[in-house]
Amino acid sequence: MKQAIVLLSGGLDSATVLAIAKAEGFTPHALSFDYGQRHRIELEMAKKQATSQGIKDHRIAQIDLRIFGGSALTSNIAVPKDQLSKDIPVTYVPARNTIFLSYALAFAEVVGASDIFIGVNALDYSGYPDCRPEYIRAFEAMGTLATKAGVEGNKLQLHAPLIALTKAEIIKKGSKLGVDYSNTLSCYDPTPTGTSCGHCDSCLLRLKGFAENGLKDPIAYL
Amino acid sequence: MKQAIVLLSGGLDSATVLAIAKAEGFTPHALSFDYGQRHRIELEMAKKQATSQGIKDHRIAQIDLRIFGGSALTSNIAVPKDQLSKDIPVTYVPARNTIFLSYALAFAEVVGASDIFIGVNALDYSGYPDCRPEYIRAFEAMGTLATKAGVEGNKLQLHAPLIALTKAEIIKKGSKLGVDYSNTLSCYDPTPTGTSCGHCDSCLLRLKGFAENGLKDPIAYL
Repeated sequence: MKQAIVLLSGGLDSATVLAIAKAEGFTPHALSFDYGQRHRIELEMAKKQATSQGIKDHRIAQIDLRIFGGSALTSNIAVPKDQLSKDIPVTYVPARNTIFLSYALAFAEVVGASDIFIGVNALDYSGYPDCRPEYIRAFEAMGTLATKAGVEGNKLQLHAPLIALTKAEIIKKGSKLGVDYSNTLSCYDPTPTGTSCGHCDSCLLRLKGFAENGLKDPIAYL
Repeated sequence: MKQAIVLLSGGLDSATVLAIAKAEGFTPHALSFDYGQRHRIELEMAKKQATSQGIKDHRIAQIDLRIFGGSALTSNIAVPKDQLSKDIPVTYVPARNTIFLSYALAFAEVVGASDIFIGVNALDYSGYPDCRPEYIRAFEAMGTLATKAGVEGNKLQLHAPLIALTKAEIIKKGSKLGVDYSNTLSCYDPTPTGTSCGHCDSCLLRLKGFAENGLKDPIAYL
């Protein structure tokens, strides 16, 4: 079985990606980050999701993005409610995907993997520069040049299987693969016990995605 | 004054790069990493160097590369002595420069800088894939696509002013710019108080560089 690194956030998208990596025949090593996110419950969801999908190697890297500030997800900027942002949202964490993928690249090199999976999506998050296909291809080119494996001819394959899917399509795909979405959390502003607000960008998109599939979102909302 | 991020390790190369960034008219923000390196003294040297060059903003990011293991600099693999490696050395940390540069990219975005300086060198460290010019250019392309600034047309400029210099040329350049090399440490295996071994790859290269300039290395050796 080919090894792969899968970035796992605790959200709906990465849970789906993990199931896709398995369905494509990879043995996934999951990687999550404790980056000072305001909502520790995300990491609990990542652990539950990894367990429910039978992942044997799930590592959590401690990183501190708070020293740079700059985002509603890591500092005290208020999360916007009841509006889907058109510009780059304040919840954007500077260079976050680049930092996450860099760790994935280190992990890949250590376990001998040439494949990394990430749940970025260019449709729902068009405001995030590091969710665009051209970014993914550029990271892949850089990552191939950065590592021993690349030097030895093993080109990095950076898989972004959700990049062109709508939220409804992602949920449809994951449901077919048996993903338990009760072990996911998407809300930018949940209660301490993990109940979702139902009004932030992320909740609005998620609820719309389930509704378009005629499915009931299994998680709790306020 | 244009802002720039300068990666500062405590070594001779990055101390020189910091002086070069200043000489080129930038206001440097220095960035160091506490990544579980076996030698905490490196970080003390980085602080001393930043102070001696009058840097007002020096941040130290806590990161944990030990969860991946894989290098003599972060795990228990022995440091080789009295031989200059031809292959990729065991002191290579997987994807280290990529991780460091990713943080620099976040820092750059937060302070509004489009310039990052790194002290990589392709001559002395030809075994490290992430010290090659093609890697630097690939990171620059990726970094431009990754950020708000890039989207808005501010291309990332990744400066690697030492990339084609010998160690002797680096020391010559830094000496002209007034770098105090007593506040640097290059040894892979120093004593706890910071005395260098004089026999690892890094010490051998450094001593050769000073000797070729007819200079005495100001640091202590066993």
